[in-house]
Amino acid sequence: MNPVTLIEHKRDGGELSAEQIEFFVRGLVDGRIADYQTAAMLMAIYLRGLNRRETVDFTLAMAQSGDTLDLHDVADFVIDKHSSGGVGDKTTLVVQPMVAACGVPVGKMSGRGLGITGGTLDKMESISGWSPELTMAQFKKQLREIGIVLAGQSADLAPADGILYSLRDVTATVGSIPLIAASIMSKKLAGGADGIVLDVKYGSGAFMKTRDAAQELADTMVAIGTDAGRTTVAILSDMNQPLGHAIGNALELKEAITVLNGSQEPADFWLHCLEIAANMLVVAGAAADLDSAKTLAQAAIASGDALAKFKLMVAAQGGDTAQIDDPARLPQAAIERPLIAPKSGKITSIDTGAIGMAAVELGAGRKAKGEKIDHAVGFILRVKIGDEVAEGEEIGVIFGEALDKIESAENALQSAIFDH
Amino acid sequence: MNPVTLIEHKRDGGELSAEQIEFFVRGLVDGRIADYQTAAMLMAIYLRGLNRRETVDFTLAMAQSGDTLDLHDVADFVIDKHSSGGVGDKTTLVVQPMVAACGVPVGKMSGRGLGITGGTLDKMESISGWSPELTMAQFKKQLREIGIVLAGQSADLAPADGILYSLRDVTATVGSIPLIAASIMSKKLAGGADGIVLDVKYGSGAFMKTRDAAQELADTMVAIGTDAGRTTVAILSDMNQPLGHAIGNALELKEAITVLNGSQEPADFWLHCLEIAANMLVVAGAAADLDSAKTLAQAAIASGDALAKFKLMVAAQGGDTAQIDDPARLPQAAIERPLIAPKSGKITSIDTGAIGMAAVELGAGRKAKGEKIDHAVGFILRVKIGDEVAEGEEIGVIFGEALDKIESAENALQSAIFDH
Repeated sequence: MNPVTLIEHKRDGGELSAEQIEFFVRGLVDGRIADYQTAAMLMAIYLRGLNRRETVDFTLAMAQSGDTLDLHDVADFVIDKHSSGGVGDKTTLVVQPMVAACGVPVGKMSGRGLGITGGTLDKMESISGWSPELTMAQFKKQLREIGIVLAGQSADLAPADGILYSLRDVTATVGSIPLIAASIMSKKLAGGADGIVLDVKYGSGAFMKTRDAAQELADTMVAIGTDAGRTTVAILSDMNQPLGHAIGNALELKEAITVLNGSQEPADFWLHCLEIAANMLVVAGAAADLDSAKTLAQAAIASGDALAKFKLMVAAQGGDTAQIDDPARLPQAAIERPLIAPKSGKITSIDTGAIGMAAVELGAGRKAKGEKIDHAVGFILRVKIGDEVAEGEEIGVIFGEALDKIESAENALQSAIFDH
Repeated sequence: MNPVTLIEHKRDGGELSAEQIEFFVRGLVDGRIADYQTAAMLMAIYLRGLNRRETVDFTLAMAQSGDTLDLHDVADFVIDKHSSGGVGDKTTLVVQPMVAACGVPVGKMSGRGLGITGGTLDKMESISGWSPELTMAQFKKQLREIGIVLAGQSADLAPADGILYSLRDVTATVGSIPLIAASIMSKKLAGGADGIVLDVKYGSGAFMKTRDAAQELADTMVAIGTDAGRTTVAILSDMNQPLGHAIGNALELKEAITVLNGSQEPADFWLHCLEIAANMLVVAGAAADLDSAKTLAQAAIASGDALAKFKLMVAAQGGDTAQIDDPARLPQAAIERPLIAPKSGKITSIDTGAIGMAAVELGAGRKAKGEKIDHAVGFILRVKIGDEVAEGEEIGVIFGEALDKIESAENALQSAIFDH
């Protein structure tokens, strides 16, 4: 087999065999296939596509390109969730302890956020001392003892994905549905999940701008999971406006703590958590249907068990639980500036991507890998699409460290909400 | 401007502006655009195409990516020819001295042959001492003094083409007509040609397998030349069988010397030389039409002027002209094996590509850049499509150095002519 022949075949719209795909993915990792050949193949895949069988084989080859985990010595059924990412998406912070509190262990690995607001790990790192760096032995011990772990993504899982992702990013081949699906699912499969709940977002703040594209991505990922023998469920969710009110790491963590404490506000965020948690419970076999799963999940909040699980995890990973008990002790921005409605009227749409970019500019997210972020900064936005506002009304708060950046954020937010 | 945006634009079928193309080509040469980005762009171009305007701009940007020549201090009108390559194509060896003997100076740069049989330089290097390595000053001096130079391609001309070509070769993006056309024409434009005669071959021994594809390539190159203000003519020629009888470096040189000495055999080769030479004379303004140009060219052979020009060039570049006077002094293979028709019948088609490959296997061409070739080895094939042969008839000769290779060549030739 030779790389040029494979590229040629896909270039001409041919179907790659499982052996060809494995040869290609193995070649990526062991360096036998050069970056430029990978890039040409990625563009050919982008333009010619991969069918279901190819996509599954591609994902499996990526999943098997490095270590694979088997957590069955510490959990009978390994459940995982994935969100395709959005603005204000702090769902994992609530859902993981909810599900764990219902007796289903959740050992989760999470990637480091790039762009928009920080990822789950960044939000958690608002807590002093908390660390996602765990050895596999520590990971398993914690999962066995307290049923909840939130760790960084191991570089040894699906290393082919890391190589591909960094190339896709610089060769205009990110937006290919089979490639996106294979990237997400390869890490889930390598992580040893028996069941996977996928939260696929669409809209102005999501990678997938339309519901149709999100549906296609969801269908592709469910097909992969199913063909790989994992129970896989996908939920489509609206990202045409931020999820909840808080955007920014400590602010989102505070909002998650509020919900863990029993608040059902912001309603969109609470209902979304309930939906995801219920699906995880059903997939894991802890509830017969979504309704009973929701009852279970809700009870875990009401009893305080979910919050207790969360605090156990924070403590086990070195975090200061006093900050969970008193979120005022979490990082606080130096300046709080009210966000004022510049005119009266009904909010008909929100450029949620622009809000995410404004958060990045303020320091809440990263423009490049490895950049430091500021955990305290961000926004509280209290308005939703359909709300009527009056000119001069306070519709949110900007949390920042420097006046010039706050002013830029103010302009960006007003334009994203009222004038885009 | 940023490379990812450009790739995206072409990926989605957009038209690249002249500025975008220039940015891309400049980026190739100065290293600001990484190989993998170039590879992704090449695949996008392969699959999405370039329109006439883009192709011309691309070619011009490549032509201007390094040095450009101006030979007008030594020639009023600079004429060049290019062949898209075929098996047994020794046309330049006859045509260049023919045209030069008619008073039109021809300073030609030629690439080093890769694959099939050697290139023009390899054929010439059958002559002891002959060298294509000339400084620009030597090139001009020789062109001024004797009106004929045959030199190696300068790496300083159209360096972007060299970078692109080596990437295309390993990323399955060679066969794109705009990219092929731009590659050929960029070197001609950088070389300062005022007029260009293109010999575009089609058939089983050519890169373009069909007449339609060759026509498309020819049209594209003529469009580029015309839009770049050069008189450009393309001739389509049949490469469904080898040109002439000789295949292999010294063997082809001998065949060319025979024609320079006045032989009109092999007829296909002689007529092809006459056609190309006549077109060059017309383009250069040395003849009013093809008929009078053919008369001129034929007279240059009959008078011995063409052969004399050839010998002048050989001598000027260090070659031993005694070998031209007595071609038996050119490299001779140790073994000559008659090629016998294995069955009776009419030859209906020839797998000319397979014959080229057999010549490479015998040592007459290169499989990889920089490989040494054997000037003496090759074939004389006396049969043409349409010929009737009898079983046991000698239809050619194999010239080789080792029996096992000769036997492989014998099998390959018999199968290419009788049984494919």
